This record gives sequence, structure tokens and C-alpha cells, in this order.
Amino acid sequence: MIKLYTFFRSSAAFRARIALNLKGLAYEPSFVHLRKGEQRSPAYVALNPEGLVPALEIDGLTLSQSLAIIEYLDETRPTPPLLPSAPAGRARARSLAEIVACDIHPIDNARVLAYLTRVLKCDEGQIGAWYLHWIDLGLASLEARLSRERETGKFCHGDAPGLADICLVPQLFNAMRYDKDPLTRRPTIKRIFEACMALEAFDKAQPSKQPDAEA
Amino acid sequence: MIKLYTFFRSSAAFRARIALNLKGLAYEPSFVHLRKGEQRSPAYVALNPEGLVPALEIDGLTLSQSLAIIEYLDETRPTPPLLPSAPAGRARARSLAEIVACDIHPIDNARVLAYLTRVLKCDEGQIGAWYLHWIDLGLASLEARLSRERETGKFCHGDAPGLADICLVPQLFNAMRYDKDPLTRRPTIKRIFEACMALEAFDKAQPSKQPDAEA
Repeated sequence: MIKLYTFFRSSAAFRARIALNLKGLAYEPSFVHLRKGEQRSPAYVALNPEGLVPALEIDGLTLSQSLAIIEYLDETRPTPPLLPSAPAGRARARSLAEIVACDIHPIDNARVLAYLTRVLKCDEGQIGAWYLHWIDLGLASLEARLSRERETGKFCHGDAPGLADICLVPQLFNAMRYDKDPLTRRPTIKRIFEACMALEAFDKAQPSKQPDAEA
Repeated sequence: MIKLYTFFRSSAAFRARIALNLKGLAYEPSFVHLRKGEQRSPAYVALNPEGLVPALEIDGLTLSQSLAIIEYLDETRPTPPLLPSAPAGRARARSLAEIVACDIHPIDNARVLAYLTRVLKCDEGQIGAWYLHWIDLGLASLEARLSRERETGKFCHGDAPGLADICLVPQLFNAMRYDKDPLTRRPTIKRIFEACMALEAFDKAQPSKQPDAEA
């Protein structure tokens, strides 16, 4: 049985949920409540010393880091592919994914916003401005690339959903908590987001549809 | 001719320099001075809409994002390999690399520290505490995993340098700017760092040995 350590609101866990769904892999969820600090419990840290979600138990292994998990799923369960087959396409899809996974999400995620609040005593306005600063930079890069590059199709890369879409969609859900409308000014991202959300694999992975979801 | 857009002090460009060196690939450097804002010049943004280094011109392509660049090099120039051959090993090496590339570096890099200083008016003490908070969390995870997991060898994964080492070493150079001694409390990381720096591919990629280096 595949077991996913997840939290409904975690963007990185959301990526893993989409990838598992796209691959048609059933999994047992194990809920790690990030706001209650369950990711720092001795039992969880013994399993994943990074103290972050997601972690995936599969094939006798415990895997961490969402991008590594997705690449592993693609290497061991190749159909349907989540990455293009040619190196140039793979580099493009990965670079789009990494704009989210390296340039936006780490700076805007919950633990960083918590530090800003608790240690640096930032107020709500400063937190919101911080959030929007980094997401605007990253989404502007993505919109520029997606709107200009000929490899963009119905999805970020071609006409099938893959790694870049898997990273983009959770980031947009995350963005909606600080920006009522992150999509209107970004027509290509909006179109791709809508194409993704029309798919069950994305829809059923969204935070509000998880068993551990809270209001 | 392979052309690398680089800045001596950029950890992400440092990763690309090491990878090119390990592969034995000669490249022409093109210097993008981050503190002078050259990454935001119209000419550079036309080339790389993300406005970040590194970018790599190779095989008629312009690639961005250091991890995507390294994977591309490994897929198109397989010898010597920078990733293990089996999926489990590849997942492990990638997850170690992503502790650096997703969980430490984005939060501690220059543009984030500049925002803390300029917008949030953080003083030097607050900047130092911020830096150490995130690097300590990340390096503690890495030390825990590297010291316990049996796949650790002379390097992060086995006895040949690869993706995880390529990410770890630049992060340690970066850390030394805020922490005089990031290594003593982390014996496994220290041992691996020293093994890497004994190799010319790592040594000649270090910031102080770049043509654009400043004091």
C-alpha cells in the first residue's frame, strides 16, 4: 500500500496528491497537522528527518521532497508520463516547475510567514505585501514564458498535464489566500489553471476536498 | 560553444559551474552582476524572463533553473553520471539536493535578505538571525540524513560526487558569510565538503576563483 503523509493545506503535499491521482495510484493518507506542529513530533521526524510534508511510503522506501517524489513516480510508473520524453522538453518542464518550487513557494510558505509574524513582528499588511511581492515576481516570469514559448499547449508543456502544472496549480490555490484574484492579469496561467481543474486528478487533490480539511 | 550566465557569488550559478566542470565541459562565462541589477536589464530578461542566474546556452537552447540545467547535462552527457542509475537512489539524491535548493537557499538568498533590509528595515542582527534560523534547520536535516542513511559514502550518495554535493557545497560557502564555522557541529557534512573541495571541479568553481570575483 502506498501511504502519503499529507496536510490538506500544504502546497507541496497537494503536488504529490495530484501526481498520484494522475498516475492512477491509490494511496492511504496519513494526516500531519502542520499548524499543530505534528511534523515536529518524534515519530514523524524519525520517519522524515526534514519534518516537512509530503513524505511517501512506496516500494519499501520512504521518500521526501515533492519534486523527487514526482520524478520517482514517473521513473517507476511511466504511464501516463509527467515529464516530456526529450531532454529539451524535460528541462523546460522542470524549469517551469522550479520557478514555483524554488522561487515562489519556499519564500511564501507557512513557516516563513510564521517567522515574519512571531519573530519580526510583521503586521498583516506587511505579511500580505511580502506574499504578493514574491508571488508577483514568480507568476510574472511564468506568464511571460508560458505566453511566449511555443511548447506551451493546453497545459504548461504540450497538451497533457505534467510536472509544471502539478506545481503551478497548488501555488495558485495558495495565492488566493492573499490575492482575491491572482488569475485575471495572467491569461495564459488562467487558461492552464482552468484546464487542470477540469481534470478529476487535480480537482480531487484540492485542499477543501481532503478528509483533513478545515474551514 | 556553451555559454553560462553567471555571477561569482550566486550559489545557483556555482552549482552550474561545478556540474559543467564535473562533466568536463568547457564554457564561456558571461557575467551578470546581481548587485548592480544587471539581471533585470532588458537584454538579460529577453534571454531569461526569470531575471535570475544561472542561464545556460547549449545545443541551441537557453536553459534556466540550476536543477533543470544539471538534469539536462546529465541526460545529454551521461558520463560521468551526476545522478545514481536506480530510481530509489535518484530519489534520494534529488531529495538531498532539494533540502538545499527548496528549503534553505530560496529563503536565505540575496534578494530575500535585501527585501528584509530595505522594506522591513531589519537590522544586521535580525538578518543574521534569519539566515541562521533557516540554514540551521536545513543543515540539521541534512546532517541527520547523511549520518544515518547507509547510501552515504565518501560523498552524499555513494563514492562519486553528484547532484546533492553540487547543491551542498555552494550553500556552505554561502553560509560562511553569516556563520564563521558552519561545519564543526556537522561532522558528516564537513567530511563530504572536504572531499568535494579536494576535487578540481569544485575548487575551480568557487566564488573567489571566478574572473568576476570581488573582495
